[in-house]
Amino acid sequence: MQDILDEISAEMRKRTDRGTVANYIPQLACVDPNQFAMSVVLPDGQTFSTGDADTLFSIQSISKVFTLTIALGKLGDHLWSHVGREPSGDPFNSIVQLEHEQGKPRNPFINAGAIAVVDSIMSGHQPKESLAEILEFVRFLANDKSICIDEKVARSEIETGHRNASLAHFMASFDRISHPVEHVLGTYFHHCSISMNCKQLAHAGLFLAFDGTNPIYGTRVVSPERSRRISSLMLMCGHYDGSGEFAFRVGLPGKSGVGGGILAVAPGEASIAVWSPGLDKIGNSKLGTEALELLVKHTGWSIFAK
Amino acid sequence: MQDILDEISAEMRKRTDRGTVANYIPQLACVDPNQFAMSVVLPDGQTFSTGDADTLFSIQSISKVFTLTIALGKLGDHLWSHVGREPSGDPFNSIVQLEHEQGKPRNPFINAGAIAVVDSIMSGHQPKESLAEILEFVRFLANDKSICIDEKVARSEIETGHRNASLAHFMASFDRISHPVEHVLGTYFHHCSISMNCKQLAHAGLFLAFDGTNPIYGTRVVSPERSRRISSLMLMCGHYDGSGEFAFRVGLPGKSGVGGGILAVAPGEASIAVWSPGLDKIGNSKLGTEALELLVKHTGWSIFAK
Amino acid sequence: MQDILDEISAEMRKRTDRGTVANYIPQLACVDPNQFAMSVVLPDGQTFSTGDADTLFSIQSISKVFTLTIALGKLGDHLWSHVGREPSGDPFNSIVQLEHEQGKPRNPFINAGAIAVVDSIMSGHQPKESLAEILEFVRFLANDKSICIDEKVARSEIETGHRNASLAHFMASFDRISHPVEHVLGTYFHHCSISMNCKQLAHAGLFLAFDGTNPIYGTRVVSPERSRRISSLMLMCGHYDGSGEFAFRVGLPGKSGVGGGILAVAPGEASIAVWSPGLDKIGNSKLGTEALELLVKHTGWSIFAK
Amino acid sequence: MQDILDEISAEMRKRTDRGTVANYIPQLACVDPNQFAMSVVLPDGQTFSTGDADTLFSIQSISKVFTLTIALGKLGDHLWSHVGREPSGDPFNSIVQLEHEQGKPRNPFINAGAIAVVDSIMSGHQPKESLAEILEFVRFLANDKSICIDEKVARSEIETGHRNASLAHFMASFDRISHPVEHVLGTYFHHCSISMNCKQLAHAGLFLAFDGTNPIYGTRVVSPERSRRISSLMLMCGHYDGSGEFAFRVGLPGKSGVGGGILAVAPGEASIAVWSPGLDKIGNSKLGTEALELLVKHTGWSIFAK
Repeated sequence: MQDILDEISAEMRKRTDRGTVANYIPQLACVDPNQFAMSVVLPDGQTFSTGDADTLFSIQSISKVFTLTIALGKLGDHLWSHVGREPSGDPFNSIVQLEHEQGKPRNPFINAGAIAVVDSIMSGHQPKESLAEILEFVRFLANDKSICIDEKVARSEIETGHRNASLAHFMASFDRISHPVEHVLGTYFHHCSISMNCKQLAHAGLFLAFDGTNPIYGTRVVSPERSRRISSLMLMCGHYDGSGEFAFRVGLPGKSGVGGGILAVAPGEASIAVWSPGLDKIGNSKLGTEALELLVKHTGWSIFAK
Repeated sequence: MQDILDEISAEMRKRTDRGTVANYIPQLACVDPNQFAMSVVLPDGQTFSTGDADTLFSIQSISKVFTLTIALGKLGDHLWSHVGREPSGDPFNSIVQLEHEQGKPRNPFINAGAIAVVDSIMSGHQPKESLAEILEFVRFLANDKSICIDEKVARSEIETGHRNASLAHFMASFDRISHPVEHVLGTYFHHCSISMNCKQLAHAGLFLAFDGTNPIYGTRVVSPERSRRISSLMLMCGHYDGSGEFAFRVGLPGKSGVGGGILAVAPGEASIAVWSPGLDKIGNSKLGTEALELLVKHTGWSIFAK
Repeated sequence: MQDILDEISAEMRKRTDRGTVANYIPQLACVDPNQFAMSVVLPDGQTFSTGDADTLFSIQSISKVFTLTIALGKLGDHLWSHVGREPSGDPFNSIVQLEHEQGKPRNPFINAGAIAVVDSIMSGHQPKESLAEILEFVRFLANDKSICIDEKVARSEIETGHRNASLAHFMASFDRISHPVEHVLGTYFHHCSISMNCKQLAHAGLFLAFDGTNPIYGTRVVSPERSRRISSLMLMCGHYDGSGEFAFRVGLPGKSGVGGGILAVAPGEASIAVWSPGLDKIGNSKLGTEALELLVKHTGWSIFAK
Repeated sequence: MQDILDEISAEMRKRTDRGTVANYIPQLACVDPNQFAMSVVLPDGQTFSTGDADTLFSIQSISKVFTLTIALGKLGDHLWSHVGREPSGDPFNSIVQLEHEQGKPRNPFINAGAIAVVDSIMSGHQPKESLAEILEFVRFLANDKSICIDEKVARSEIETGHRNASLAHFMASFDRISHPVEHVLGTYFHHCSISMNCKQLAHAGLFLAFDGTNPIYGTRVVSPERSRRISSLMLMCGHYDGSGEFAFRVGLPGKSGVGGGILAVAPGEASIAVWSPGLDKIGNSKLGTEALELLVKHTGWSIFAK
């Protein structure tokens, strides 16, 4: 495995077209696009890494996987009255679909859906308390108490987050937001600003590759059925309107973030985190996707393979 | 396996809400909604069936899997200049997406996409020749020379097929159709009117469950990579704007038809065909989906399971 | 003229289907739907009225005519880089068009357009100053210093104005709003909350019926060309997606508000204000439209008549 | 008047940016873009012309005014169950609106609407008979029996008319077309191919400028109310998604065709035809619009003027 990762890393270093770093969040725009990292965790806990696997990056939308997991724990299937579970065919921040479907977001991974999920887990609490809960859960999953929120990124997002504010107010106009819009947005922007490195992220996603149970410690996070359902949503909607492309090329459930990270899970095999800040046109890590494509080619881990 | 199928069959017999038989094609509207059948083929060729597994039904959109396979064989990746590979988030016969994307269909399984695929494989031939080729391929896959087109259904579709005619002319107005629209539509409607039973259909799909090679005879139909890609398209787009729901509940690549059939593949395990004519609101077999959900529960065949 | 108005008023009193009072702004929801008023001002200053013509009502979107006039005075044709001048074919608060046209509102009379117009006239000022300017202009037009803003209505709008907040943030995300979104919204909601009666409103609109000059005092408000252009925008877009219907039935440039008022101008003839709180499905005063239809039938004032 | 027209003509000759000749109908693509003509008919029959006012051109969508008039005569207000009367905010050949509103076209002047209008007047007749009726009506209006259909243009349109075929089949799929689609399209394409010169066209539109009665002969074509309503539809929808712009700049009810003609009416004053083959981006005659703008500046004929 280490050889495979090093080969991929070497290959990625050669690539000159590395995509474009997200520029709409000023704090993310200044990240060096030449960075690359990948970590693979096997069920026995062995962790293989290559590149800048200890460098922290902003996980951004990957956080949506963790809040979705929390929300399903709190609301169960009732969550699906707040948010749908179909791919949207639209960009991550589209509002058109909301107007056509009376303010109900198509799935939990587009921005509107994730904002609705955050609202659904706040249960009358203040943003601080909700954030503490989310952060605690991520630390528990990764078994790492050092994971933190990057306040600078969070503030940068709040200042420039008009599009998300628009989505939240739009849903609120359909009575789909239970807490003050500012509170929900504050929580949303902060939980997108969690900083992790590839090692931590790969560990945090391990339960999804093993039917809901962390195979290292044997701790059950969610039921097998729920784990599979979260994975199916990742596959169907985890890369916005590039989800079909990702399924086609990589063939693993995955969730990307505009910070350049991708969390992917190979059921029964491994949890994988990859990071490279340059994005393709749709907003998914360009080299990250290419690296995963190579990894699957080497390992045969596609969920569509026999 | 026989016990599982019989249990599912018994369970399905009890269901009173069986959906609605497709009524926009007169010839399909008169099918008895109380029918149900399911067949499972294992890699050693063992075939387990329950219900009306010898009754022929109109495979309708399931035929799109076979023409996609032919088109990829003929055009390779060049096919993707004719048709995209993203879920559409729209109904199967929507034209809105076409206008927004200059006549290029979002994927090969919505009607517009399948019409474009049919056009791409005609290579200047007459409808008769193209149909002969498609039929030959399906017979080869199922290893059954008796498979035929139901002329009555085909004629019924042509007479009432204004929506598909609209889609085809729309694409033609963007110069995306190379043959006379009437020829393309004739071929399209006829290949949707292929009649098969569950046993035949399950056999025809077997290659997709085993990386492109029929495990009974060892004949390679497509490369492992192509097989996985076809499967990924089935998962992402095989049930129109109900694809997310199907992935969530069943967790297998599948393709439905308005005749009430579904072809599903469990990679490395089996090929499955199910048929029940009553459809849900989106146009997918209601009991068919429920039966597959039960089958996966019993067997654990979800592609998202470890 | 007095006979015509009294006849219309008598006719309107008989109507049982009076539409529905706007209920999304709590303060407006409690207005008595049985009220009706109409005022007609002729060029010599003669003012004919019927019904509750001294009762104040919330002019709501009719205020958009006055801010558009101010904005054209300040920015001239440069205003059209901020907002278009085509009918939208969409409801007054639709956001779909904004996404399709990169945040530029289709015309100054849909909500998004009016918010952009308000932003364009703030010129770095605080909401208070901008509101004072707008109010001063309306008082000048109506020659009535008693005209005021209803603070209760304004506060009620702010509290429930998520949809407009969504529109404003959406435009801000495209850098189309120059002032803090809260300031723009505060100004917008307050200027919608100006209270006027039919007499005042008819006087305020008089300049538009006489090529930009108030014929009573001979004061020129805008040039003839600008007056005609504002009138054309009222005809094309003044009743949202009911503008075609209004032009078809009434045949006069008009602007409606969800408070139940309509300002209409008969070029060269008169300025007309009508008010009845019940709205049709699209959000225009039901009896107001019917009364104008009758008035035009009696007077022949249609701009399409010889 | 002659001086005004000659001045406009001289001004237009100077213009170098003359727009682009419609190229999607091959037969229209070869028209010389340097031509220009304008005719004005006054109520006493005096006809003033400038430029190539005897040159025949394809009236294209201007024919929609005449079929609308026939349809209102046959169906009265029942026509509005077939077609709406709101501006669409979309291009002339958009299909998006049709899908959102169950196949009912927004107004009679977008292509889908005009196709529905043609279908509504066929009353079970063959295309030939319907065309004879339309042609007879246009000849009667213009008092000129020499007016003919250009068969070459008609055939050229049929061969390349996939977009209109798509619209017709789409409406047929909602059971909104009563005759065979091919018959309706044949009639539609042929009536768009009527050839007229500016003099003939200005005469044909005269009734609309005088409340439905031709003032030269005193023949009443339609009632005053109907005449005003047709005019209002021309103003609101006569230039597709450039209707707001035309109302803003010209201020007269008008209908354009992609052949480069525009028919405009100044109520109580005159009927005007203008022709210049080069089109703006939206598909309306570029110089034609500019010439009308100048004419209104000279005459003050805007319907929004006092």
